[in-house]
Parts: sequence; C-alpha cells; structure tokens
Amino acid sequence: MQKRVQVSLTALLALVMMLALAQQPLEAQSDRRATQFTLSNGMQVVVVPDHRAPVVTHMVWYRVGAADEPPGVSGIAHFLEHLMFKSTEKIASGEFSRIVSRLGGQDNAFTSQDATAYFQRISKDRLGQLMLMEADRMVNLRLTEAEVLTERDVILEERRSRVENNPQAVLDEQMNAVLYYSHTYGIPVIGWEHEIARLSREDALGFYKRHYAPNNAILVVSGDVTPEEVKRLAEDSYGRLPANGEIRPRTRPMDPEQRAARRVEIKDPRAGKPSVQRYYVTPSYVTAEPGEAEALDLLMKIAGSGATSRLYQKLVSDEKIASSAGGWYGGSSMDFGKIAVYAIPADGVSLATVESAIDAVLADIVKNGVTEAELDRAKKAYLAEYIYESDNQSTLARRYGWALVAGRTVEDIEAWPERISKVKLEDVKKAAARYLDARRSVTGTLLPVAPDGVVHETGASAPLRRS
Amino acid sequence: MQKRVQVSLTALLALVMMLALAQQPLEAQSDRRATQFTLSNGMQVVVVPDHRAPVVTHMVWYRVGAADEPPGVSGIAHFLEHLMFKSTEKIASGEFSRIVSRLGGQDNAFTSQDATAYFQRISKDRLGQLMLMEADRMVNLRLTEAEVLTERDVILEERRSRVENNPQAVLDEQMNAVLYYSHTYGIPVIGWEHEIARLSREDALGFYKRHYAPNNAILVVSGDVTPEEVKRLAEDSYGRLPANGEIRPRTRPMDPEQRAARRVEIKDPRAGKPSVQRYYVTPSYVTAEPGEAEALDLLMKIAGSGATSRLYQKLVSDEKIASSAGGWYGGSSMDFGKIAVYAIPADGVSLATVESAIDAVLADIVKNGVTEAELDRAKKAYLAEYIYESDNQSTLARRYGWALVAGRTVEDIEAWPERISKVKLEDVKKAAARYLDARRSVTGTLLPVAPDGVVHETGASAPLRRS
Repeated sequence: MQKRVQVSLTALLALVMMLALAQQPLEAQSDRRATQFTLSNGMQVVVVPDHRAPVVTHMVWYRVGAADEPPGVSGIAHFLEHLMFKSTEKIASGEFSRIVSRLGGQDNAFTSQDATAYFQRISKDRLGQLMLMEADRMVNLRLTEAEVLTERDVILEERRSRVENNPQAVLDEQMNAVLYYSHTYGIPVIGWEHEIARLSREDALGFYKRHYAPNNAILVVSGDVTPEEVKRLAEDSYGRLPANGEIRPRTRPMDPEQRAARRVEIKDPRAGKPSVQRYYVTPSYVTAEPGEAEALDLLMKIAGSGATSRLYQKLVSDEKIASSAGGWYGGSSMDFGKIAVYAIPADGVSLATVESAIDAVLADIVKNGVTEAELDRAKKAYLAEYIYESDNQSTLARRYGWALVAGRTVEDIEAWPERISKVKLEDVKKAAARYLDARRSVTGTLLPVAPDGVVHETGASAPLRRS
Repeated sequence: MQKRVQVSLTALLALVMMLALAQQPLEAQSDRRATQFTLSNGMQVVVVPDHRAPVVTHMVWYRVGAADEPPGVSGIAHFLEHLMFKSTEKIASGEFSRIVSRLGGQDNAFTSQDATAYFQRISKDRLGQLMLMEADRMVNLRLTEAEVLTERDVILEERRSRVENNPQAVLDEQMNAVLYYSHTYGIPVIGWEHEIARLSREDALGFYKRHYAPNNAILVVSGDVTPEEVKRLAEDSYGRLPANGEIRPRTRPMDPEQRAARRVEIKDPRAGKPSVQRYYVTPSYVTAEPGEAEALDLLMKIAGSGATSRLYQKLVSDEKIASSAGGWYGGSSMDFGKIAVYAIPADGVSLATVESAIDAVLADIVKNGVTEAELDRAKKAYLAEYIYESDNQSTLARRYGWALVAGRTVEDIEAWPERISKVKLEDVKKAAARYLDARRSVTGTLLPVAPDGVVHETGASAPLRRS
C-alpha cells in the first residue's frame, strides 16, 4: 500500500480532471454495468465497459490482506506486494513496471486489511500481453535472499517516514490497536516494526504459495473491451494456471462484544496542533443488517461531511471553537465498519471543550434524528458522487474490486444507489442510537507537548490553554 | 483455573495455619533445596524435600497455557484442563478425583496464561499409584461428544458467574485487552464467550495432542520423599511414555513498544463502589535485565503493599480521600510483568481526585526515590515471607513450578533472596523512572451508574459527586 497508492492517487486526480474536461453526457453512465463470469480454475472475472477511449484498467485483486497474516508476522502481505515486482523466469527483477511503462502504461499495487491488488492502465491492444505478465507472476515469483533483505530495509524506512515520524499516524495505529480486541484489524497494514524487521524470504514465499492462486483472485477489467474479448484473453493467460486446492474461506478471530469506552493519549512535541478523534466499531456493508450500512453512510454524511455538516456548522461556523471538524463512515471492509469523528480546536480552546461539543452534536442526532431536508440533500450528494465516480475508469474498477474482494456481489454493488434512495429518517436515527454508543468507541487525543512520564493527565482534559 | 483454584486457595490457607501452629524452627528451611534431573524422554523433574510429615505434594506442570492458544479458540487450554478429569481406558469419567479422595488425598488443577498444572496432596505411600494415574491421563485421554458439550456449558456458566456478573472482572478483562497489542496476554484465560461457545471435541483433542507430552511437562514433588525414590517412581510411570518429537519452544507474538497512555471506562449499575486502577507493562523475571525485577518487587512493596505503604499512607491515612489504596508488581509470567495500582475513593470523593493522588505518590518516588529505611523494611518483609512460604509444602512446590514453567532455573529460584538483599536505592529509583511511565499504562475506571450511550464522560473526571 502506502507509497505505491499515493502515486496512484495523484494519477487518479489528474485522470478525474481530464475526464471532467471531456464532458461526457450523464446518460452514458446507465450502461456502465458489469458482466461477470468465472474461469474453469475458479478465477472470478468482472468486465465493466467504458468505450470513451481506447484504454483499459486491469486489476487483479487477491482475497488476502494484512488481516489474514498469521500472528507474529505482521506486514508480510504488504512486504510480498513489494516483492511481487521482483523476478520470474521470464521477467527480470524490477522489469515488470518498466515493461508496462515501455508499453505506454502505468502500474501500481496496494495492500489493505482485506485485499492485495495489482493494477495497470494501458492501451487496449496491450491488454493480452499484460495479462500474460500478471498471470506469470501469480505463480512463478522468484526471490533471492539479497532482494528480500534490501526490500525489507525499504519497508522499514517507509514505516519510519510514514508512521514513526508522524504522531497522527502513531495515534491512529494505537487507536486501532485498542479498538479491536482479538481481530487482526487492530494490527497495522504495514506491520509492527519489530515484526517487519524479522520478515524472511521463507515468510514471503510461504504467504505467496498459500494465498496467490487464480481461485483466490478476482480480475476486474474496465475500459474499451467486450466481455468476450476479456474472456478469451483471460482463458489464454490466467486460465492456464492450476487452481490451488488448499484455498479456504478466510476466517479471522472475531471480537467479543464492544463494552467499554476507551481512550488513547499521545503526547509528542512534533504534533503540529492538538486534535481529538474518535472511532466507533460498526458493521460493514458485508456484516450489517439490510439497509443499516446505507443508513450509517447517510448519517455520517449529514453529521460530518463538509462545511454544511452538523459537526462543522456547530464547532467551526457557529461556536468557532474548532478550526476543523468532521466525520465519516467506512463500510467497505469485510468484518467491521467504522465511524470516525474529529476536531482540531481553535487557538486557546481545550480538547475537552471541542470533545464535549462533538458529544453534543452526536447526542442531538441520537435523540432527535436528522431532518428530511438533510436526508434528501445527503442522498442527492451520494447519488451525484456515484455517477461522477462512474465516469472514472479506475474508480469504477476499484468500486467492483473492493466490494467483490470483501465478499459482496455485482448485483449488490449496482443496487447501492437504489438502496441509498430508500433509507428513511427513522433508519438513520436508529443507526445513530445503536452505533454512536461510547462503549463501542475509542477516543484519541494528540497533544504537541513532551511526554510527561509518570504524571498522567486525566483523560482529554489536558489542554494547552483552557477555553 | 477459576473455580478449581479457589477451592485450593482455601485449602492452602488452612494448611498455612496448620503449619504455623506446628512451629518448625527457622533453620530447618535452609536445607529445603531442590534436586533436579531429567527422564530419558525429556520430562523435567524437581524434588524438594520436606520430611516433617509423611505426605507429598505432587504437581505436573505443562508448558502450555492460555497465551499459547491459536487465534479464535480462546479458552481451549482451560477447557482441556476441565476435560482432563474425564476418562482414559483405565479410569472412568469423573473417577480421577474420587480415587485420589479414596486414597486419602486431595486434587485440583488450574490454568494460567503460561501454564496448566495438575496437583495432588497425598500420603507418601500412595505416590507411586498417583503417578501412574497422572501419567495415564497425560497421553490416554478419551472424550465423548456428550462430555465435551456438557463441560462447555459448565464453563460458559463459569464465565457468566465470574466475569459477566462482575463489573470489576469485566474491567480487568478490558484493561488487559487494551494493555497488550498483539500479545496473547490480552486475551482472558477463560476465553471470550463467543469463542468458548464454539469450542469442540476436536479443538480439545488437537490441543491435547500438540501440547501434552512428557517432554513438555515438569514434575515437581515436594514432601517426605528422597530424589532417588521419586526418580524410580517417575521412571516407572512418566518414564515409559514416548517423547513427542513435535514439541517446539513456545513463541507468542511480541508487542511493539508501549507508547500511548490508554484508558478504559466501565459504567455498570451493579458495580458496588467507584474505583480506579492502573496497569503498567514491565518486564518479568524472565525478560528483565539482572536485578530489575527484584527492584520492581521492592518498589511496589514500598509503594503499595499494606497499611504502611506510600499509597495507603497518603490516600487513606493522611488525606482520607480513599477507603482503600495499594499496588503490586507481578513478575512471574514468561513474557511481560505488570505493575498495578488502585484506589477506592472515600464517599463523596471523585475518581479524578484519587487518581491525581496516586499520580503524586508515584511521581514523588520517580523523582526522589524511596528511603533506606523503607528499602530495608521491604527486604526484610520479603525474606521473612520467603522463609515462611517455604514452610508450606504446596507453596514450595508452586514456587518451583511457576518459575520453571516460565523458563527459569532452580539456581535462579534459590538465589532470589540473595538478589533481593543486594538491590540498592538507585536500582529502585531507576526502575520506577523507567516503568512508571504513563505511555506504558492503561487506567481503568469503574462507575456504578448506567451506561450513557453517546454521552461520553471525558476520562476519569466522571465523579458521582465531586470532592
């Protein structure tokens, strides 16, 4: 993930702007629906047509992520993702991306808790060649001891620069560790430093052989191709690989009931501004009851998204006690979703003050719900975003990839706008009451001061200056 | 553990009193040293003589505990401990303890994070027969589906009565879950309820076959026997069992650096009184640098043990803000030790007030250390306890068992009084400064009020009445 995905987000942004300029008519979106089939070795394939330009986005999603790592070897999924750019018998070490580039394409990869994905954007006439290359490294990866050790240093440095030197990232890591009890979502995707430092060639190859196989992968192709073309090319590449009979459905240790409000406090002079944030464990789109995840999406759109949201309005616009405030719901993971809320106090205002104001906003929604006008506006915003995002070939491919790798279906994905439009006021209120419960939460505070050792500030009430 | 160990503690207490009445001369202790040898199948044996009465304490310690359970099957070590009282080909289900009782003895068992132990106290002439029985169930356990399901219900009920109905136990469970990141010490010994509910006969037998073998066990016999007698009896019983070639040294996922002060808040109307407690992660006797665990023992004796301790003196005697206050260091585990401090506020005093007072006591020790007089008194108290405990045959056997199963040596155990006597004032101060660090801690608060859903009290500042 990490470095690689950053590059790709920049590329994505450029692409979004390019497509916006192209001004495609809105009605072109309605036929942007997927065709799906399965190869005889069990590899799932989804094709999403987009004939506006002769390019394709090709993604292979493995049903394995950081949450599937065995105890003690955290970071191995992400490490393997890096190592997948080493050699096979046909491709020299480091050549994969150079070949894609010479073919006029771009490539990258990322690792999340639930998935590892490799993707390229390339001219449609190069798709066949690309698929042969991707199929090749699905089963023929070679690793030398030297490559592994060098790449491990790269990842340790990546961790140092992205986590160790970033107090906000440290706080986030600590909050996740506290939020989950036994579940592996509590372990950072990049891995704990002391465990990364011990990852070996054997760990990487063992993980590769256990999880990388056509019957544990999903191919998503969006772009200027037909399902028939993709099927022929897929059968000639991935289709020739044997299924791995050892692949089993994923099981992670599930958590007991969430039953205690928790807090995490980081004091670090390098933190720029004090801040407070809170996570609540919720269901995800996979685990929620029907309509519940959609209600949570709308709830947090209303509560925390943008300058018209409840949190921003109260804390920033009205009371002027925060320079920033907001929140979101993330429901795309396999086993749990998450609500997040946050605020950065205005100068001279304590964390305790902004935290109380956040509590007041949420308590009001739990008690009184949201308004019809807010719900309408939130629905319209989501539906517009959905259509707008469908215009981006890469975003479109990712939408299917994320959902399928978590166990959802194409039908489920495509019915989402309809389900969003059906959410009622009482669904939002019910979801708020059920999930905005302190016992499901961890609250994190970040203070730009030196750690004080034994003297322990009581909770969030540790302001620089009191308001 | 749980129910069984309680029974045994009562028995222990009776025994302590009986032995105290017997008034053995103090010099009799000096020869209470262990003889050790290993059977040809790898079983470790320790014999500790105690010839005051014709009885023996026989304990078999397995090098496996709850912290060795695979992800998702928490509670299996303790469950198996219960199931070890079912049948073998020679002994009918439930008969083991009845036979011991008919032989005039008592038996019990317990499970901890690091060990599972089975023990009996019996007349010396029955020792051979007992060892044959214990050796038999080490490898010949039989379980029926019905027995497993019935016993699982027993354990679920045990969990309900001991944890679910006890807010203090819930808080303790939550604090441990938050204190450790990846390490299995964060999972309760009895197991998470949803995982206990799924434990199967296959889980139990799989765990049994993987961990129960002579080369994964330690036999400790204390009492009226000679090492030669024990050796002969052990060779005729345990010595006939084959070693298990699959036994490997234990490895648990170790935690990353402790780096954030954490809090856990339980609100439950059933809690009797509000209370605050804090745990700090420290090294254990196994993982500490030389002398460090001894310094921690003395530190917490001075800070938190009894009515003369710093915490009790300040919070209870002087300021009268608490009805109870204290602390301890637990250093007997394999991978981590723990410092605990706690207080129960006096009526009308807030948790925040007593927590600040605890902080002040600890900060003073970190800054100024303890006094020579305090250190002398603490050393004398430990040395007296050591001698006094050596007078208790069962305590003596446990002392060796606990330490050996965690990987320590007989020499290490027996040199402890000498190491305690050598600890200096600066060692205590250094240990306090290093380990009484908020970033290594989790603070738990318990309030006898209804959970309030969304409204989140900020930290410990949630008094019933403010002082």
